[in-house]
Amino acid sequence: MQPLQQRLYDEIRRIPLIDPHTHVDPQAPVGRRLDDLLGYHYYTELAHSAGMDSSLVAPGAPPERRVEAIARFLPTIENTAQYSWLMDIAHSLLGFAPDRVDASTIGDLVDLAAAKMADPDWERTVLRESNLERVFLTNDFDDALGGFDTDRYVPCLRADELVFKLDQPGVRERLARCSGVQAGDAASLDRALAAVFGHFTSHGARAAAIGLPPDFAPRPQADAAADAALKSLAAGREVSADQLAALAHWTFWRIAGLCVEHALPLDLMIGAVRGVYPAGVHQGRDLFNRLTSLHQYEALFNAFGRARFPVSIIDSGQNPELVAFSWIFPNVFTCGHWWYANIPPLIDRDLRQRLSAVPRTKQIGYYSDAYKLEFCLPKFNMYRRVLAGVLADDFVVGRGWSEEKAVALAHDVLRGNVERVFYGDRGAS
Amino acid sequence: MQPLQQRLYDEIRRIPLIDPHTHVDPQAPVGRRLDDLLGYHYYTELAHSAGMDSSLVAPGAPPERRVEAIARFLPTIENTAQYSWLMDIAHSLLGFAPDRVDASTIGDLVDLAAAKMADPDWERTVLRESNLERVFLTNDFDDALGGFDTDRYVPCLRADELVFKLDQPGVRERLARCSGVQAGDAASLDRALAAVFGHFTSHGARAAAIGLPPDFAPRPQADAAADAALKSLAAGREVSADQLAALAHWTFWRIAGLCVEHALPLDLMIGAVRGVYPAGVHQGRDLFNRLTSLHQYEALFNAFGRARFPVSIIDSGQNPELVAFSWIFPNVFTCGHWWYANIPPLIDRDLRQRLSAVPRTKQIGYYSDAYKLEFCLPKFNMYRRVLAGVLADDFVVGRGWSEEKAVALAHDVLRGNVERVFYGDRGAS
Amino acid sequence: MQPLQQRLYDEIRRIPLIDPHTHVDPQAPVGRRLDDLLGYHYYTELAHSAGMDSSLVAPGAPPERRVEAIARFLPTIENTAQYSWLMDIAHSLLGFAPDRVDASTIGDLVDLAAAKMADPDWERTVLRESNLERVFLTNDFDDALGGFDTDRYVPCLRADELVFKLDQPGVRERLARCSGVQAGDAASLDRALAAVFGHFTSHGARAAAIGLPPDFAPRPQADAAADAALKSLAAGREVSADQLAALAHWTFWRIAGLCVEHALPLDLMIGAVRGVYPAGVHQGRDLFNRLTSLHQYEALFNAFGRARFPVSIIDSGQNPELVAFSWIFPNVFTCGHWWYANIPPLIDRDLRQRLSAVPRTKQIGYYSDAYKLEFCLPKFNMYRRVLAGVLADDFVVGRGWSEEKAVALAHDVLRGNVERVFYGDRGAS
Repeated sequence: MQPLQQRLYDEIRRIPLIDPHTHVDPQAPVGRRLDDLLGYHYYTELAHSAGMDSSLVAPGAPPERRVEAIARFLPTIENTAQYSWLMDIAHSLLGFAPDRVDASTIGDLVDLAAAKMADPDWERTVLRESNLERVFLTNDFDDALGGFDTDRYVPCLRADELVFKLDQPGVRERLARCSGVQAGDAASLDRALAAVFGHFTSHGARAAAIGLPPDFAPRPQADAAADAALKSLAAGREVSADQLAALAHWTFWRIAGLCVEHALPLDLMIGAVRGVYPAGVHQGRDLFNRLTSLHQYEALFNAFGRARFPVSIIDSGQNPELVAFSWIFPNVFTCGHWWYANIPPLIDRDLRQRLSAVPRTKQIGYYSDAYKLEFCLPKFNMYRRVLAGVLADDFVVGRGWSEEKAVALAHDVLRGNVERVFYGDRGAS
Repeated sequence: MQPLQQRLYDEIRRIPLIDPHTHVDPQAPVGRRLDDLLGYHYYTELAHSAGMDSSLVAPGAPPERRVEAIARFLPTIENTAQYSWLMDIAHSLLGFAPDRVDASTIGDLVDLAAAKMADPDWERTVLRESNLERVFLTNDFDDALGGFDTDRYVPCLRADELVFKLDQPGVRERLARCSGVQAGDAASLDRALAAVFGHFTSHGARAAAIGLPPDFAPRPQADAAADAALKSLAAGREVSADQLAALAHWTFWRIAGLCVEHALPLDLMIGAVRGVYPAGVHQGRDLFNRLTSLHQYEALFNAFGRARFPVSIIDSGQNPELVAFSWIFPNVFTCGHWWYANIPPLIDRDLRQRLSAVPRTKQIGYYSDAYKLEFCLPKFNMYRRVLAGVLADDFVVGRGWSEEKAVALAHDVLRGNVERVFYGDRGAS
Repeated sequence: MQPLQQRLYDEIRRIPLIDPHTHVDPQAPVGRRLDDLLGYHYYTELAHSAGMDSSLVAPGAPPERRVEAIARFLPTIENTAQYSWLMDIAHSLLGFAPDRVDASTIGDLVDLAAAKMADPDWERTVLRESNLERVFLTNDFDDALGGFDTDRYVPCLRADELVFKLDQPGVRERLARCSGVQAGDAASLDRALAAVFGHFTSHGARAAAIGLPPDFAPRPQADAAADAALKSLAAGREVSADQLAALAHWTFWRIAGLCVEHALPLDLMIGAVRGVYPAGVHQGRDLFNRLTSLHQYEALFNAFGRARFPVSIIDSGQNPELVAFSWIFPNVFTCGHWWYANIPPLIDRDLRQRLSAVPRTKQIGYYSDAYKLEFCLPKFNMYRRVLAGVLADDFVVGRGWSEEKAVALAHDVLRGNVERVFYGDRGAS
């Protein structure tokens, strides 16, 4: 890095983090062995794409075999950002010295990881080294939310099943069990959803989140439409695709309303298509369709003026739309750099656009989306390096800003806005 | 800026400007007080997006209250390009010294603006400081076009109402009044449109312009379709959406033909959706839908080979299409960096693409789109900075061009092509 | 160039090339006069776009008149990448000294070209100066593939006519003639296609390639659908658009299967629309529609797991999708920078994304698409300059890679992967 970018980066790294979206399991937030990191879908799917047999890394495969299988293919992906994350963890957290992980060095890394992770303080070490204060979770609607510190591991309601899978009897049963309400029509579904929200907010939930397919265009629905679909489902009768869509829209709309009532932001994660590649590795089967527009959310953004919608996009080509919508709608916020858009060249271009046109108070800079705490460090480092570069070019050099002023902007996007948006006026501290 | 970019920028600033698209009112081209600048929709909409109550800046609100309301939110948008324009005006035109405008300094800026703008020479001062020779207007079809110097303030026919609002009785009445023709069928609408064009060209008009929604795909229509729609409208009968669409296509096609007959370029401004956010501030309610393609204009570009179509896009993601169409169709020109695409990171990428693939004689580099002359300076400065950077990187360093040759290219895109396209062989001087 | 980029560029230029997609005629691989280069559609279409009368460059026009006509317009396109190619050829291959080609210097260039090209060693000179070992061709399905060295000029089956033009009697007749099979139903078409593949692979073919319109979304079809269409065609009966589409899908699907059976990669070239501008110059009538998604190929990629699909896109905005699909699907490869996306600013951004997220073994860096060998040099030089810049920024500086390691990555994308993908384990040497 150039000296200016390096100085900014060093200052930015001092900002304590709240990671506003992860898939961390609060009961097992860190890895117990290298396989817990190398089994991350980014490595299995990239190795598979490069030629590795997917059966070698199937969920039931022996961890030592999986690690070896992936290690053999790491040389084919050493150009990727994802490989860089691994090297950053190896160097920064695990004390690995060589500049390459491959079949010849994987054994050493496995041993180092085992030794480090055996330390009962490993979780605290990772949090401290990562300068990480709080970590948002992704909780199923019927998660008990018990047995962990909800200040540190902050519950968030994942709403996908409620919106898109109510046609599955198992989902309706779980909803009945956790809410105490049999959702047989719109009114009772309303009560069940309210119970879920009550449970979550009473356990310190700070957000709801939902993944939305590229062709989703939510519209309000009459209760009668939900009634009809739910009654047919309850009776085991055939339900048409249109009826199910109406039910999904009704439920989505109601959840948006409950988010307003409970002052919970609703994270919209737009564009992924699930199961595109059924023969792919576990969690490596989804892709996206770029033919989507935020225009599809016009009715939603207008209907819920008091809501807060942090929006994640999966196609970087949609970023100019996200910038425009966030610049016009008070309830729309830019949020992170998600999944296929979470690589440096795309972060760089998306971030430059956002920083030059969206109010500084409306940008949630980054989240890790991690399954294990160890990945927060390298992912945030990647983001912080890009952020330092953009601030150096476009603000310190481009506009003559002082470095202090640039770091203050970084503080907003990395920390201040997470507090503003998810904790409201009280802040997180 | 680096020294090379700075040298190019300094030379580029010496090129006298013709601003080929603005919304300036020739009877009140400059501000009379700061509110006339700070009330620009960019500030009201960004402040509103950041949390300001929209009622504080409604058109009827007291100017001093509006200025205060916006000033309180300026710190939340100081990262934006739009805030940079304000600071450039404050420093370059108003003599403001501090490096920040906020609630604590707004009073000084209000006073400075009032003093400067009270000078009867203010308009001439702004033109001179901006190196601005001519300014294109945006005129309603029934504008009298009288009482101002049409060499300096160049009339341009805004055709949106004629194409998309003939179903409104008020629009038809205004057309009848200004043209002397009651447009009750295709033939009479033709005569009315011809009268409008005659009026505009006799008053020195240099262009027509129209804003087009993202799903517009114009096709020629039989006169009978226009006849049917116009007769139903005249009779007060219900007119179907299809009939209205046919009328819009017919009228658009006729206007394109009249532009050819009168040697007027027709500015196509593609992709905006009006009224997306009805609760937004005045002029801050429109957005765009990126699902659009220039392919929709294939029939138009083929039908009017002798026309000149300067094309503005609102989604930067469409720029590769615009580059390709301008490189193939002799009658398609790249035009400016419009609205949501008018921020430095998007100008930078769009400009690099255009300069590397579109004939240098076919690029209208920039227009201000300003409502007050004061905004021409900072907006053109923003563009010129980006242009100087691209010329430095891609031409002087990248291709070994001399600085003189690079500045000559800048002259084409900033001035020469405005003359070529809008003034034809005679030039503007 | 900066010293680091220059050092990388110099090393990258030492990598011997296999050009995996061209339109070179092996019987006339190089030009005989300047017109053979200046008549390339890039120059005729850009000059026409800038105002040149298209009749001056029509295929039958006298070469000396065509050269003069284009030369007069070269000053209007000297900003373009395409003009840079011409200058690179003029300087590197033809010994031209001036820094500009225009009406005043074109005569010298014509003479220089005539002298150089008269040398019987010209073809070998160009190959040697270009460091070019092998050149893939684009062969019609009924090409005899005789009379040239198929190791150097590698046959590739162009499948467009088979998929999209079987409704033309002339195409069916040519297929019958070359395959010995009258394709009157699915079974016989199958045999005819198999014969074509047998002919091509017996003559050393290394790929099939097909251009696909933006709305193409291939699906498997029952043989009965192909039967019905083919029988109607044979009987001279009217065939509906749906029937023809089903036949195209059936044939495309069968060709994909034959590619797997013959271990031939199938190049998919996605997004062009043919004949958009009928009044354009020869080969300058096609454009593209950006409303397309790789999602349309989901069924294909899943159905042919053992296939190899090098994918070329024409809209750079689709690159994030291509990156994502190549990172997930083992049978999808990024391939080159095609046509309207083949300009430095788009190569730069597309390449950065690919290098940071797609396995290094899955990227076919570049092909020239050239009609004459002389264009391989400047086009690959353009790519190599961009590649050297990206490696310098993102890998040597950005990740601390050694220059050797960066050049090894360049070797993969420029040479190694061409061997891996098109020659399999045996390699090309």
